[in-house]
Amino acid sequence: MADNPEQKPTPAADPAAEGAAEGEAGPSKKALKKAEAKAKKEAEKAKRAAEQEAQRAAAAAKEAADDKAKDNYGDRDVVKLAGDKVALRNYGDEHLGKTVKLRAWVQQSRMQGAKMCFVELREVEDWSIQGIVTASAEGTPVSKQMAKWIGSVSLESYVAVEATVAKPLEPVKSCKVSNYELHITKIYCVARGPEVLGLTLAASNAAISSFDVDGKMQELSIGDAAPGQSATLETHFDNIVMHKRSPLQQAIQTVRENVRDLFIEYLKKHDFHSFEPPCLIGAASEGGANVFGLPYFGKSAFLAQSPQFYKQLEIAGGRKRVYCVGPVFRAENSNTPRHMTEFTGLDMEMEIEEDYREVIFMLEGLFLYIFRNLEERCKEQIAVVRSIYPSEPFALPADGKEVRLTFAEGQQLLREEGPEIYRNVTDDEDMSTAQEKALGAIIRKKYGTDFYVLDKFPESARPFYAKEDPENNKVTNAYDFFMRGQEIMSGGQRINTPAELEKRMRTKGVDPNSPGLKEYVDFFRQAGCPPHGGGGIGLDRVVAFFLNLPNVQLAAYYPRTPNRLTP
Amino acid sequence: MADNPEQKPTPAADPAAEGAAEGEAGPSKKALKKAEAKAKKEAEKAKRAAEQEAQRAAAAAKEAADDKAKDNYGDRDVVKLAGDKVALRNYGDEHLGKTVKLRAWVQQSRMQGAKMCFVELREVEDWSIQGIVTASAEGTPVSKQMAKWIGSVSLESYVAVEATVAKPLEPVKSCKVSNYELHITKIYCVARGPEVLGLTLAASNAAISSFDVDGKMQELSIGDAAPGQSATLETHFDNIVMHKRSPLQQAIQTVRENVRDLFIEYLKKHDFHSFEPPCLIGAASEGGANVFGLPYFGKSAFLAQSPQFYKQLEIAGGRKRVYCVGPVFRAENSNTPRHMTEFTGLDMEMEIEEDYREVIFMLEGLFLYIFRNLEERCKEQIAVVRSIYPSEPFALPADGKEVRLTFAEGQQLLREEGPEIYRNVTDDEDMSTAQEKALGAIIRKKYGTDFYVLDKFPESARPFYAKEDPENNKVTNAYDFFMRGQEIMSGGQRINTPAELEKRMRTKGVDPNSPGLKEYVDFFRQAGCPPHGGGGIGLDRVVAFFLNLPNVQLAAYYPRTPNRLTP
Repeated sequence: MADNPEQKPTPAADPAAEGAAEGEAGPSKKALKKAEAKAKKEAEKAKRAAEQEAQRAAAAAKEAADDKAKDNYGDRDVVKLAGDKVALRNYGDEHLGKTVKLRAWVQQSRMQGAKMCFVELREVEDWSIQGIVTASAEGTPVSKQMAKWIGSVSLESYVAVEATVAKPLEPVKSCKVSNYELHITKIYCVARGPEVLGLTLAASNAAISSFDVDGKMQELSIGDAAPGQSATLETHFDNIVMHKRSPLQQAIQTVRENVRDLFIEYLKKHDFHSFEPPCLIGAASEGGANVFGLPYFGKSAFLAQSPQFYKQLEIAGGRKRVYCVGPVFRAENSNTPRHMTEFTGLDMEMEIEEDYREVIFMLEGLFLYIFRNLEERCKEQIAVVRSIYPSEPFALPADGKEVRLTFAEGQQLLREEGPEIYRNVTDDEDMSTAQEKALGAIIRKKYGTDFYVLDKFPESARPFYAKEDPENNKVTNAYDFFMRGQEIMSGGQRINTPAELEKRMRTKGVDPNSPGLKEYVDFFRQAGCPPHGGGGIGLDRVVAFFLNLPNVQLAAYYPRTPNRLTP
Repeated sequence: MADNPEQKPTPAADPAAEGAAEGEAGPSKKALKKAEAKAKKEAEKAKRAAEQEAQRAAAAAKEAADDKAKDNYGDRDVVKLAGDKVALRNYGDEHLGKTVKLRAWVQQSRMQGAKMCFVELREVEDWSIQGIVTASAEGTPVSKQMAKWIGSVSLESYVAVEATVAKPLEPVKSCKVSNYELHITKIYCVARGPEVLGLTLAASNAAISSFDVDGKMQELSIGDAAPGQSATLETHFDNIVMHKRSPLQQAIQTVRENVRDLFIEYLKKHDFHSFEPPCLIGAASEGGANVFGLPYFGKSAFLAQSPQFYKQLEIAGGRKRVYCVGPVFRAENSNTPRHMTEFTGLDMEMEIEEDYREVIFMLEGLFLYIFRNLEERCKEQIAVVRSIYPSEPFALPADGKEVRLTFAEGQQLLREEGPEIYRNVTDDEDMSTAQEKALGAIIRKKYGTDFYVLDKFPESARPFYAKEDPENNKVTNAYDFFMRGQEIMSGGQRINTPAELEKRMRTKGVDPNSPGLKEYVDFFRQAGCPPHGGGGIGLDRVVAFFLNLPNVQLAAYYPRTPNRLTP
């Protein structure tokens, strides 16, 4: 960091000092003398420091010159090593006695005497192994200077290691790879960690101590936290690198990645095309509430709250079945465990051929595919998460036993089997979050599933583009999907002709000629648009609800809330 | 569209009229008489129209009642039909005589006499077949009313058809499926097209007539364009549904989808993890030029110009190899065939283990994988595009003959074999777009490839985060990738320690303590970050340059430029 220190202006070159000499009265004699004395003192101090530094350097140079292992350790930029690269998860007896190479984070280190250092090396996720640097053996390329050096390397530094695989005297409990250890012959520090971590790995890997965004007062001092100590959500995101490195976050990120991949896999198998909707749009959709706006070359632009319009354009444009994965934006000042201002949407839309339930079945198949494969592909990761945030396994229905209720049937269940306060809920009012959770508990008890569908939402609870049930215009061909009593997807059949759309808009008190909406209706006039339906899924919520995390931000990579725009 | 006509205010309820009666002087007697006469005339006109309409309706009802086929055609919302669903591309002799069902757009229709109608049905892309409705045969469920009705259905309406597969007397040249035709037994219109299309399929499927965004004057009247007539880019995007339906755009969209899929496929095979970077960021990167800003709950937010910072955080956070596919934003007022304000970035970043060229080899392998598989998977689509926008096939190097030049070698080629004006280019100035194109032509001639890499860009041409070549600090470990002489990817090794980063910032005259940059440097202080490198690819450009399209907007779904934010 001293390579090119910031140039401090000299007194002569300091424009403020010059101004003082020319304009106002000069300094007093006394002040000048005082300054002189101070400068002299500082010069002496600097001289002493320089001498001490020179002595230290000479001693180090001598020690280094004497060091038979001096080329086998130290700070290096890029390092080429001998040995096989074997991932820690693949270590076996066949590697005993072999030379291997490894790149890893220094998770812990501990000197034993002056000649020996134990170091815990973490490669990825929670895969760690014990390394030993010992200068005691004859003919070894390891010196006591080398052992001392590795003992001094700060935690979470990144090192490149060449070593021989050996059996430890007894299993190393503190490392995931407990049946092998590494006898280190070379070790180089590729990137140094800080002297003091803003968030230790132990704290990063513990349950959050406080989700209160204004709770700075509650924040623990966790600079050198003992294992098990925990930190606030704020501290986690302010120390994003350490937050991400924890085996917990690595596991959550892998689950998230798999949800996304499984979504795409299933839809591709069913002939869906991917596409990218724009984020910048010319008119605020749905009346402009909760929409971010920005200046755009003398005009105004907005950030899309949903790709729905563009999914519909894709269908009208002849793509039959489409999906997209991308950011959606909500300018809501909601500070809840479920809300973010930017999140990842998993969206799909498809032509309806003979019955809108084709869409429900597709989505149901999609979710079951995701959940079932997740249990299998992410068994390890789910276990890691549950060890920190305990939860009941996510209960799924047996094949053919999927739970699909109409909204009215859901309200009936609430009336008949729900808490007293829901005795009088009616079929044409929307459900509150609390009602949804209560219904989730009833359904879990009655049908043994955490995943289910409510269909035929009342007309009053849906926007103007929702298609009415042709047999009962009090309800719509629109549905919500639920996980553990929480909505994770809203969708339905959309109106696909301009006349019907205008009629519904007027019934709902929406002006079909208002900006944005006129363009929406007009697009159905460009050419005949097939019947279609779909839904939008919040990726962050699916992950959070599946793992039963206490806050959706723990399932996000870089959460955005009204209070947080960084990192 | 007459279901709920807009309520016109009656004179009494018209607030403007009321105001006039109460406040200012009333209308003159003459004016009143005139208005009375006008009202009477209009009432008579309305009466006559109603009588005529009633007569028409009665006649239609009688004809309908007489119509033996009246249940076999008409406008229907959702239709269930008998017969097998066979995609047009799979038609074969085994289907002859079989009943099939089909959902398609009416591409053309033509009455022959009063009893027969020919109709071209397009299912998807350019897959079309001829259908016949004929009332001449005995015992057929088809009536002359039905033939007349289908002849009247507007073009680009969406219809559901039940039919028998037959051999035509001679191949139907106007349809892609020329060896079969459909004898229609039922046909329902699911969604009507407009009476006059804003852009016909023929015009939509022709080369663009003008790319001039201010060229409204040049716009052709193409309401009922003859085949081969073409339209401006403006007209295309103003009629996005028809734009997208053209076989040309369907082909481009499929090529684009495959580029994206191949990018992901290759990187997943090489252990890359997907992630989603945020679009909303707290500080304008790279000095704030060309960045969109927006108000954010009393603060300011910006739209990310690149996910680079977040890719780097992923590496520091332990993900080893990452990629992301998502929107990036540039607030550049550039109206060129290569620029858009929002486009899709294909980004990757990886740890460097022993040599930064690991990244170059990965990226080179990635591009070759994309290009080679594209030629194979999209053979049909590429042919469709070339039939409208002719181009030379995209030339690739043979295995092991990949072209990688240093920037200095590129400049040398330009000096020695380029146009006269480039005789004196030097190794430490950046290349202009024109120079790049000239070099592309030389390389194509010399090495027979349209794809190549320039490495070791001069230090002066790269931003502060580019890693200097440890052996020659006049150049960097940074590279550009080219297609047909046009840059499609910029990347390189990034500096990964705070001290080196600060030093380079100061050398480049960038203040490491300025907002945004301080946070950037600080993040490398959180914990040791491994050496890493990567690159960002513009998806739209790759598609446009591969197909040699005249404008990148033709490769985009919903292009965004300084002049266009819709649809």
